[in-house]
Amino acid sequence: MDNKKRYELLFNNINQYNSGEKGITRIAYSNEEQTCTHAFMRMCMAEHLDIRMDQCGNVIARRKGRIEGLPPVVMGSHLDTVYQGGKYDGVVGVTAALEVIKRLNEKGVETDHPIEIISFACEESARFGVSTVGSKAMAGQFDHNRYRNLVDKDGITMEKAFALCALDFKSVEQASRVDEQFKAFFELHIEQGPVLINNDKKIGIVTGIAAPVRLHVKIMGKASHSGTTPMNMRNDALLGASEISLALESAAKSEEDFGTVATIGVLNVHNGAMNVVPGEVEMKIDIRSTSLQSRQRVLDYLNQTIANVKKNRQLEIESIEISSEEPVLLSKEINEVLKSICEEKNISNQIMQSGAGHDAMNMTKLCPVGLIFIPSVDGLSHHPNEYTPLDDVMIGIDILEEAILHYAKINN
Amino acid sequence: MDNKKRYELLFNNINQYNSGEKGITRIAYSNEEQTCTHAFMRMCMAEHLDIRMDQCGNVIARRKGRIEGLPPVVMGSHLDTVYQGGKYDGVVGVTAALEVIKRLNEKGVETDHPIEIISFACEESARFGVSTVGSKAMAGQFDHNRYRNLVDKDGITMEKAFALCALDFKSVEQASRVDEQFKAFFELHIEQGPVLINNDKKIGIVTGIAAPVRLHVKIMGKASHSGTTPMNMRNDALLGASEISLALESAAKSEEDFGTVATIGVLNVHNGAMNVVPGEVEMKIDIRSTSLQSRQRVLDYLNQTIANVKKNRQLEIESIEISSEEPVLLSKEINEVLKSICEEKNISNQIMQSGAGHDAMNMTKLCPVGLIFIPSVDGLSHHPNEYTPLDDVMIGIDILEEAILHYAKINN
Repeated sequence: MDNKKRYELLFNNINQYNSGEKGITRIAYSNEEQTCTHAFMRMCMAEHLDIRMDQCGNVIARRKGRIEGLPPVVMGSHLDTVYQGGKYDGVVGVTAALEVIKRLNEKGVETDHPIEIISFACEESARFGVSTVGSKAMAGQFDHNRYRNLVDKDGITMEKAFALCALDFKSVEQASRVDEQFKAFFELHIEQGPVLINNDKKIGIVTGIAAPVRLHVKIMGKASHSGTTPMNMRNDALLGASEISLALESAAKSEEDFGTVATIGVLNVHNGAMNVVPGEVEMKIDIRSTSLQSRQRVLDYLNQTIANVKKNRQLEIESIEISSEEPVLLSKEINEVLKSICEEKNISNQIMQSGAGHDAMNMTKLCPVGLIFIPSVDGLSHHPNEYTPLDDVMIGIDILEEAILHYAKINN
Repeated sequence: MDNKKRYELLFNNINQYNSGEKGITRIAYSNEEQTCTHAFMRMCMAEHLDIRMDQCGNVIARRKGRIEGLPPVVMGSHLDTVYQGGKYDGVVGVTAALEVIKRLNEKGVETDHPIEIISFACEESARFGVSTVGSKAMAGQFDHNRYRNLVDKDGITMEKAFALCALDFKSVEQASRVDEQFKAFFELHIEQGPVLINNDKKIGIVTGIAAPVRLHVKIMGKASHSGTTPMNMRNDALLGASEISLALESAAKSEEDFGTVATIGVLNVHNGAMNVVPGEVEMKIDIRSTSLQSRQRVLDYLNQTIANVKKNRQLEIESIEISSEEPVLLSKEINEVLKSICEEKNISNQIMQSGAGHDAMNMTKLCPVGLIFIPSVDGLSHHPNEYTPLDDVMIGIDILEEAILHYAKINN
């Protein structure tokens, strides 16, 4: 059986664990996800890996190295999904890691460093509103007090969800590996965006993971009758919001070289009606970049626009920053290695950034990290139609294999 | 007792009939409204008027003229309200009409023409979604088949509501007075807008009643991840909507000389979320003018903007005209008379149009019509805080009285 056929069977095997709705639903700490995770552990055992599940539900599968005491080279991603998600998000990285091990076993390759696969728990925020929970725990970033009482849509707390998986929430700090040594961490992931597919590139080499600053903006004008209020006597909150939207777009566009993006994803007109001039509008704004400076320039322009709109349209505008995270930069050295591997293999590639968060983000607290993207058709993700051609996945696995072999050598 | 004190008692007397919620709630064909209407009929009888209620629930109260066979001069408005409305909308016009009769009786003035008060039924659309039902019936515009099955929020049909008031829905056509002769109709009404109060004028002389063209616009872009989709690869439906909003505003502003107004009162982002580029937006648009040409220019500019946005942003845009009504022009001759009455009495006044519909609109089918506005503080209406100072109402009544006396003379 060739690699491609073998990998396809593994990939389909993992995706049979889901709740049977439209698309793939394999929510963190659910029965489907736990069954899938345990099946994956058995598959790793079949490849003679040492396996364990840590106190957060992360699976760690280790292949011995030739030289005692060297830190492991690690690769992984996650098996949980959003509700009605796709087959590729996370699954590709975990199954690719196992495929790499199978290749090494098949060829009888021994490596200087040990190699680890990690299948991270609860990467998606779909269940509890927090993402990359497993890798946060591993990086010593688990916020015990805050997470304990988070509830899912059925009112089940995270602590209770842990208990139902026979995980002891009180011991989750033991999942931290901040005191261990690691050689490097690699994550292969679908891009979840349109850049590679639009530019016809097979591999994305990710320089950094953008972090959002998020704002809640409330605009208060004066509700009035749409027929009896002349245009020059209006304080229309929606027109203020429209000006802000277009200004934000132009600010983000002028920062395109930095990959900065800005989005108003939520806009509600309070008590909107056909015959009422909008009196109140709320908006939710998300601005992301791997460059804090670029993101700040967009934010400054937004604030300046808000001040102008407030004055010119005589509106009250309240802008609250609800979160502001730091972008994460990945290893330049690893990216150079990834670039030369692509070039040796004659694989088209692109240096890019990630606009979405990944477990790789937290792993930067432990070691140098490389994040490898493969194309997403139509840029679609978190959707039943999420798709990456098998041949593109195989290219990703080839690159991952070379990177692992490179770093598993004692002198690299 | 002076006129002002007497009028205040009458006004408060009428407003005591309401369901006791916040503001005034006296819904058409409800117990409160019927009790109020019957009380008003008794007040008219006390002034020696001939009273009747027609088959639609309109009250007609007639004061004899000196010369047999002359058509009546008519004045009136409505007593029903919206839910949690104010004390002035409609009530002012009906009570002012009775105050005018009281003055004539007190002074022993006889007029050549008979004078009528009409209290129109169901002017507000609050209960059944259709407005000016009583005056439509009187003008022969009652849509029997359409109205019969309209239901209120409790599932009561208009036909049933009529029956509960001992009105025979099947005979409503008999309320039509299209075959009668009328000399003129006058309605005194609060402006329900900010023009008079902002311009510090006491009387508005209304040249026409604007009619809306209404559109439902649906914009379809492509929902995508707010982090992973570069600015130049987006099809953001909300940004398209923002451009259309601002273009519509500027089109309406350029038609300000015609009193044209345009409003987007409803804008919904379908499945809006902080981390999703909006894929679908729907808007409801209302454009009003007393000039069909001006309204059409705004509509043309809107359609041209939609075509541009569609092309430039690669969006699908569907625009459906859901209604298009004809503006109504009021009597120029009457307006000249009203103007000269104001000037004789040294009352500040303004020629203006009405952006909201009134019973006066339907009465244009029967005779020349005059609509007289008095100021609304803050332009507020359909709200518990709706307010017009009593002195301003008294000015309105003085003008109404003079106008009635003018037209009730045989040679005018």
